[in-house]
Amino acid sequence: MIEPKRKQRKILLLVNLFSAVNDNARIIDGRSAAEEIKSSIAIEVSRMKESIGNVPGLAVILVGRGQDSLAYVRNKIMACHEVGFKFSIAELPENCTEEEVCDALSNYNKDASIHGILVQLPLPQHFDAGKILNVLSLEKDVDGFHTLNIGNLAIQGREPLFIPCTAKGCIELLLRSDVEIVGKRAVVIGRSNIVGLPTFLLLQRHHATVSIVHAYSENPEIIAREADILVAAAGVPNLVRGSWLKPGAVVLDVGINPIEDPESEHGYRLIGDVCFKEAVRIASAVTPVPGGVGPMTVAMLLLNTLEAAKRALHFP
Amino acid sequence: MIEPKRKQRKILLLVNLFSAVNDNARIIDGRSAAEEIKSSIAIEVSRMKESIGNVPGLAVILVGRGQDSLAYVRNKIMACHEVGFKFSIAELPENCTEEEVCDALSNYNKDASIHGILVQLPLPQHFDAGKILNVLSLEKDVDGFHTLNIGNLAIQGREPLFIPCTAKGCIELLLRSDVEIVGKRAVVIGRSNIVGLPTFLLLQRHHATVSIVHAYSENPEIIAREADILVAAAGVPNLVRGSWLKPGAVVLDVGINPIEDPESEHGYRLIGDVCFKEAVRIASAVTPVPGGVGPMTVAMLLLNTLEAAKRALHFP
Repeated sequence: MIEPKRKQRKILLLVNLFSAVNDNARIIDGRSAAEEIKSSIAIEVSRMKESIGNVPGLAVILVGRGQDSLAYVRNKIMACHEVGFKFSIAELPENCTEEEVCDALSNYNKDASIHGILVQLPLPQHFDAGKILNVLSLEKDVDGFHTLNIGNLAIQGREPLFIPCTAKGCIELLLRSDVEIVGKRAVVIGRSNIVGLPTFLLLQRHHATVSIVHAYSENPEIIAREADILVAAAGVPNLVRGSWLKPGAVVLDVGINPIEDPESEHGYRLIGDVCFKEAVRIASAVTPVPGGVGPMTVAMLLLNTLEAAKRALHFP
Repeated sequence: MIEPKRKQRKILLLVNLFSAVNDNARIIDGRSAAEEIKSSIAIEVSRMKESIGNVPGLAVILVGRGQDSLAYVRNKIMACHEVGFKFSIAELPENCTEEEVCDALSNYNKDASIHGILVQLPLPQHFDAGKILNVLSLEKDVDGFHTLNIGNLAIQGREPLFIPCTAKGCIELLLRSDVEIVGKRAVVIGRSNIVGLPTFLLLQRHHATVSIVHAYSENPEIIAREADILVAAAGVPNLVRGSWLKPGAVVLDVGINPIEDPESEHGYRLIGDVCFKEAVRIASAVTPVPGGVGPMTVAMLLLNTLEAAKRALHFP
């Protein structure tokens, strides 16, 4: 037997619940944002070529032939081609020595036609990635993983030469989507050196109140639910369910996880760290996988390389 | 008219409220912890002197004569004296040039009897602190503020040569008080390069789930109330009230704020960022001001200098 007052309250609760469930979160289209950025880079490259005869050059060092790494490198080659960059690759066998990798790096450091260098990660287990990354000339560290670049990203009042591409891509998507960042709660799930850490540092530079959730965190879903802006970068397919989201949150899904799918062409397809079909019902905006953060990462790499070339060539 | 059931509920609520209010939070005694650490450092210094004839040496560069800076430097001189370190100071006038500061630094960099160097901060406004700190030899950066040290503190899998003293002192107090850190929620209030940032990074290294609250944060008290471990480092007297605390939280108060007090000897006394008399009723443990984090900061500086000397002298 429900008293009238209680009945009214129950109805109100139901209304609130329904207003929280909105089936049409905005889909943040990273692919078209990346296309726009690449178009303006291509224009800059033409201008550079016409006025000083140079184009930006990107070099990749690839150790071994991991399937993921090969796919990522292919994307980068295509993107360089699209915008008119020079591209160079040093392919080394899985069993090469640290010295051989450092030699390849040193050659690119000296090569005036190369303005950006990146070492395709992950490196095989037996390598000291930190040592290798620090051989890389700071002025060509377009991935932004050099210790000095990370230090300068962390320290208030400093400017790193380069901001790591995925973090930069995430913020660029937020800014392009007119998402307010200042003072808002942001939660980054995952604390990798490549994505989680730099994304934390960059969100804080934009004055968000940021928390990092990781494998040791107790009650990750409760913390995630406090986020106005949620960045999922744990590498765990469908980790973030609808119940992890604050209604109206903006969700950036960095995960790119292959799962078996006999119906798709290659026997697998890519899904994110966020359960997309649940997220679109709760979030106000969400990035898809593929077609969200991924293409932006490549666009930011091109942007960093363009900046590096402009700095090296004193081209305004 | 309260129905019996509701009455019962009300009583239960009151009981919960009272169990949350406990008037005897443990007072974390930073002074005695620091004394213990200094005693063991003094033993190490004697051992070093007897076996190789050297003692650790600390040098401070002091620009201008700010009252706070003078007081801090006096503390450091006294502490060095206590444990048997050599101490050297370069005093430069407020209106000196950046070059003069860098020259003083370079001299200490070359001086084999000096193993740790610190530049007393803050520097006068017209200085580029970052540029100056990076002149400092990485092996003598006992404050841990060099960009490479901060970068290596931020990046997982790396080991910085030195951890900034206040952050290190905070964690040391937690460990000595048997506070569980792994997986717990930690909130750092304040994001200074000197305290907030390194404390965040160090808590994360110990696998806490960390958030940073700062001047732009919306609803700081709500975020603070989520913390199992709260570090207050905003430099705002009595900012953190009892209502900002989760019952049973552990509270580290880094603030050292002078406030007028005609009844005390010098016309002022020092208070923290945390309203102590409210905190002791809600927290399970809390550091006092003075006598909490402050003495630990100095002890950690001595510890870093001892480590630097051992490394330089290859003394095990």
